[in-house]
Amino acid sequence: MSHTAEIVAVGTELLLGNIANTNAQVLSQALSSLGIDVRWHTVVGDNPERLRQVLDIARQRADILITTGGLGPTYDDLTKQTICAFFGRPLVLHPEILADIRTFYEGALHVPMPENNTRQAELPEGCVVFDNPVGTAPGCAFESGGVHVLMLPGPPHEMSTMLQRCALPYLRSLSKEVIVSHDIMTFGMGESSVDQLLEEEMRQMDNPTLATYAKPCEVRLRATAKAPSRESAEAMLTPVVAHVCAVLGDVVYGVDVRSLEEACFLALKARGLTFATAESCTGGLVAQRITALPGASQVYRGGVVSYWTSVKADVLGVPQALLDAHGPVSEAAARAMAEGARRITGADLAVSVTGAAGPDPDERGVPVGIAYIALAAPEGTFCRRMDAGRRRRDRIQGLAANHAFDLLRRYLTGLPITALDATHP
Amino acid sequence: MSHTAEIVAVGTELLLGNIANTNAQVLSQALSSLGIDVRWHTVVGDNPERLRQVLDIARQRADILITTGGLGPTYDDLTKQTICAFFGRPLVLHPEILADIRTFYEGALHVPMPENNTRQAELPEGCVVFDNPVGTAPGCAFESGGVHVLMLPGPPHEMSTMLQRCALPYLRSLSKEVIVSHDIMTFGMGESSVDQLLEEEMRQMDNPTLATYAKPCEVRLRATAKAPSRESAEAMLTPVVAHVCAVLGDVVYGVDVRSLEEACFLALKARGLTFATAESCTGGLVAQRITALPGASQVYRGGVVSYWTSVKADVLGVPQALLDAHGPVSEAAARAMAEGARRITGADLAVSVTGAAGPDPDERGVPVGIAYIALAAPEGTFCRRMDAGRRRRDRIQGLAANHAFDLLRRYLTGLPITALDATHP
Repeated sequence: MSHTAEIVAVGTELLLGNIANTNAQVLSQALSSLGIDVRWHTVVGDNPERLRQVLDIARQRADILITTGGLGPTYDDLTKQTICAFFGRPLVLHPEILADIRTFYEGALHVPMPENNTRQAELPEGCVVFDNPVGTAPGCAFESGGVHVLMLPGPPHEMSTMLQRCALPYLRSLSKEVIVSHDIMTFGMGESSVDQLLEEEMRQMDNPTLATYAKPCEVRLRATAKAPSRESAEAMLTPVVAHVCAVLGDVVYGVDVRSLEEACFLALKARGLTFATAESCTGGLVAQRITALPGASQVYRGGVVSYWTSVKADVLGVPQALLDAHGPVSEAAARAMAEGARRITGADLAVSVTGAAGPDPDERGVPVGIAYIALAAPEGTFCRRMDAGRRRRDRIQGLAANHAFDLLRRYLTGLPITALDATHP
Repeated sequence: MSHTAEIVAVGTELLLGNIANTNAQVLSQALSSLGIDVRWHTVVGDNPERLRQVLDIARQRADILITTGGLGPTYDDLTKQTICAFFGRPLVLHPEILADIRTFYEGALHVPMPENNTRQAELPEGCVVFDNPVGTAPGCAFESGGVHVLMLPGPPHEMSTMLQRCALPYLRSLSKEVIVSHDIMTFGMGESSVDQLLEEEMRQMDNPTLATYAKPCEVRLRATAKAPSRESAEAMLTPVVAHVCAVLGDVVYGVDVRSLEEACFLALKARGLTFATAESCTGGLVAQRITALPGASQVYRGGVVSYWTSVKADVLGVPQALLDAHGPVSEAAARAMAEGARRITGADLAVSVTGAAGPDPDERGVPVGIAYIALAAPEGTFCRRMDAGRRRRDRIQGLAANHAFDLLRRYLTGLPITALDATHP
């Protein structure tokens, strides 16, 4: 039997926009991986009457109800009381939990336990206790009229710790199905073009399903299968992933890879190569994206942000005569920048970006959205021209950085390097 | 009359946990600032029947209903059709919107418009059109039986652009009152320390209100007043803002400034100065943040990402003997990096960052979270040591970049430069 879940977060701070509901995201990922269908997220404030109404709706449409928040000791946390009253479960004091909370305060924090923490040791009669090794508020689960109710704490690290240690084992015992997903990552084609390449029947499949997500500068396709075992789910997914990759061709930069920079990182590491950067209009974004990855120093030596033309000449050694003749936003400048970065850092490869990110055209009148992206390698230097149109500045920068990584991954995987039409739909 | 709102996000990717519902957070902040009470967030998948049920519940309990998502051109975006059918509003083709979308593709992106984008030009009869300057899907608003329905796109930057330009003016017109807010931006003090400095009565005020928002590496305070006119709201806010600034002192880096880098940008521009960067553990983040601002070339010349120690020596000219004696993560290295960046770029000022961002300590055993941040100026070089503890890599990088900008803004505004205790609670 397949389960349907609703995640109810209780907290006025969510409704005021002080924080995002990341707990719902973490829970949804975990539940999906168990084959539990999450159909609703609801956020409601610390208000007993409105919480009761939300519980009443949830109980009618879902058979797994997970609440987050409202287990703390303060007086505005009435969630536990409200939920227990709604499901007709009296709260009872668990002396062993009270002892644990007291030990946490006296042993770990070296202070006496505040008296209102006693309330945290009260849990619904007959529940499964979820203990909280990183905080004081325990959670719990109970079943009432066919609905499984799980109460988890609000602070994200307490919630995710309790999820892994207690809630997932509890939920796993409810289900026989497994869900497996694979992400097919593409760069260089818009969402509508991807959709038009894929046949209607691919997009309408029921199990496995295929969904398209447009990230700011990329398109990701997720294939998901539900089956009695991981092996049978994988067997359903293999032909789908292979078909999509074949149809989309070399715009696919990886399956289950998180980003273009991660694809480059893995390919560079596998081949024992390092690279460097020379950036003008992206202003350090290519460098920042690769160095956001732990272990980046294995593949990345460093680079230059040559924002002013003088820095292109003085630090990267781009000849002044070349800059005068072609301008700083030109194929010639991009090539010389990449070659300069490779020379001064001693890296095996270097990528460069120079362009007009806007909002104004560059000083020589190069229109907004134009950029030249080059790759210097032992075999020679490759260059691609991008025309991103009059997009927002951060989008142009993001696209240009993606092109730099795309040149790199094409070089590293032996694909045609500059063939891509770099006009963006 | 006071309004009650529900935010309904439509998207299976939210229920699968692929993304967090940040749109709901952004909308909640904006609506709260207008004095509109957001009472529920709901997330539902791309499923017409379940969406109809959610709309039916929302219509009964809220008088403002804001939907996000489901306006795209792909086949799984049935939100618009479902909402219009539910509220009995036929969809009609708006030729002027179609022309805009075609212009966007042909004019700005230089490609023909894919045929399925035609659907995006269909909007409910008699609605107020919200145009979309950063994407193709327009939004809209209409009133039906006393409920105001606003349909906004799902991609966060499109949603927030349309919110600012169209949805907020629409919502503001529903109320007779004016709401004015000012943001007091701070860096260098944790949220609880800020709270403890402010008196109870400041935090409990009703109108104006004072709210604290902890961003990943900063604390923002927002003072908001509700009044019949802008002038009277401003008159209520002036003493509150002045008081908070006086109490918090020089951790306040600006009022209604968006970020530390913007504060630096404005101060540099006012004084006609330029700066450069030399980055190790931040990997280009300082450069990327300043160049994200339009017009950055007025104040920023460029810099070096000296990720490998050899790049510190070869490109920035840090003496090898110094690096051998003190290590690349040291006060001496930070000072020499800043001085090197200043020298090779010819900038008036330069900032540098070198540290251990983790997850592993640096090769000489410097613990994760330690960084040295230096500022080279004509008067000499200043250095600050940061201890961010074992935070996540991106948090350590973000904090270190903030320190670089903080040194710069303190220098530019004549404040004590390195006095701040840079241990992070």
